[in-house]
Formats: sequence, C-alpha cells, structure tokens
Amino acid sequence: MSPTAVEGCVFCAIVAGETPADLVVDDDDFVAFLDQRPVFKGHVLLVPRPHVVTLPDLPAELRDGFLAHAQRLATAVVEGLGAQGSFVAVNNTVSQSVPHLHLHVVPRTRGDGLRGFFWPRTKYADGERAAYAAKLRAALG
Amino acid sequence: MSPTAVEGCVFCAIVAGETPADLVVDDDDFVAFLDQRPVFKGHVLLVPRPHVVTLPDLPAELRDGFLAHAQRLATAVVEGLGAQGSFVAVNNTVSQSVPHLHLHVVPRTRGDGLRGFFWPRTKYADGERAAYAAKLRAALG
Repeated sequence: MSPTAVEGCVFCAIVAGETPADLVVDDDDFVAFLDQRPVFKGHVLLVPRPHVVTLPDLPAELRDGFLAHAQRLATAVVEGLGAQGSFVAVNNTVSQSVPHLHLHVVPRTRGDGLRGFFWPRTKYADGERAAYAAKLRAALG
Repeated sequence: MSPTAVEGCVFCAIVAGETPADLVVDDDDFVAFLDQRPVFKGHVLLVPRPHVVTLPDLPAELRDGFLAHAQRLATAVVEGLGAQGSFVAVNNTVSQSVPHLHLHVVPRTRGDGLRGFFWPRTKYADGERAAYAAKLRAALG
C-alpha cells in the first residue's frame, strides 16, 4: 500500500492492486480504469496514486501529468473507440461518489441523447453578475 | 488581437477585450469570466488566450497553469460564494457550444437539484469490459 493509502478507500485499493480493475493507465503517479457503471462504454476514471480528495488537493507536481493523461484519454476514446468527442469532468465534494479524486472521461457521439448541460440554466438579475465576479476575484486574492 | 485569434470566435473576442465580460482571472495565458447563462450563479468559464479547440489541443506548456487556475477557481466558488463543492467539466467537440476550449467551474450545494451524473448508467456484457480496455490501451500506445 502507498503511504497515503486510506483504509476502506475503494480507489486506494485499486491503486494498490488489491481490487482488480480494467486498467488503461498504470504509471508511477496515476492509474486509469474503466468505470464499472459507465455513462457510455469506455467511460474511464483517472486517479492519482496518492490519496487526495478533491481537485484543489492535487499536489502541484502532479498537475501537468494529470492533465496530460486527461488529454491522452480524451484522444484515446475518439481514436480507439470511434467516439466523436468526450466529456471530461470532476465532481468535488458534492455528487462525489468516492472521496478520492477521479476525473471522468466519457466518450460522446452526436445524438447519444445527452446534452452539454442537460440542466436548466438560470439568469442574473441586474447588477448581480458584477457582485458575483467581485466575490470570486476577492476569493482568488 | 492575439496572433492565434480566430475571426468570429466569441471567446477570442473576450480574450482580446473586444467583448466585455465579468473577468475573474486575467493573466498572460488565461482569462476566466462568468458564464452568461449559468447553471448556478458564479458559474465560471476558464479559457486559454491562444485559440485552441479542445482539451487535447492545449499546448503542453499551458497545462500546469490551466489546472492550477481550475484548482483556484474550484476553491474560490467554495470560499467566495459559500458553495459546498464544485463541478469542473470540459465538453470536447460534442456538446461544445463554442469551439474554443473552455473549462466550466460550477458551484455546487447539496440538495441543489443536480445529480453527479444525472444520466442513466449502462452495463458491460460479459467480456466486453476487457475488450474496451484493450482498445483504449492500444490507442494510448
């Protein structure tokens, strides 16, 4: 087990090789494997080997490799599976099924029945946009 | 205009300052601004200044900065807006409304009515998982 492995974490168990998975990436820093219940077949989860919970927790030295793998996986679902595009996403805390950072790469095809944001959009009231932007700028420091 | 700016690209126009936007990040390589039609208020789009279409097209030298900004924005929607988490996503080609790479950072709150994957999941038939994994490994080289 890695020194950062968390007892009971299902992704730490895959990282450690204790739970079998259909691995598609397996290197010093990351593993990627098929989601057991894919949105579409070929749906992959990219996971850093160290146990970190959310995207902001990913150590700086792993950022480049994490995004490089995301790029390669997004290309692979197109070239390897005949998808026309991909959906790449991370849920942080809310809707995060496993509290070990995982990036979804889902193959997409036009007419597959999903929508880009499948969700109702809302609108800002007058002046509200500026207030939200100011709060975010303040939080960004 | 940047040397890579594409005529008629609405995000290149924001990058160039020709179209106003509620900017929350504005540096040498990236801008981030409020989505005009947010899933939830405070929904931000992070865009590289050079015109690239999809995530795999992002130049390697911008990967670390892109993900660092994504981390900072995911933290900012929690710290600045009181969200409990975030949804961070890129649509590549399919469902991609503007063909200039943009990463969505959406504030999330438990009970906000969205679901992690709001989509039906499918299942692999016997042996099918191994076949999909093999195709992806081959495409990854």
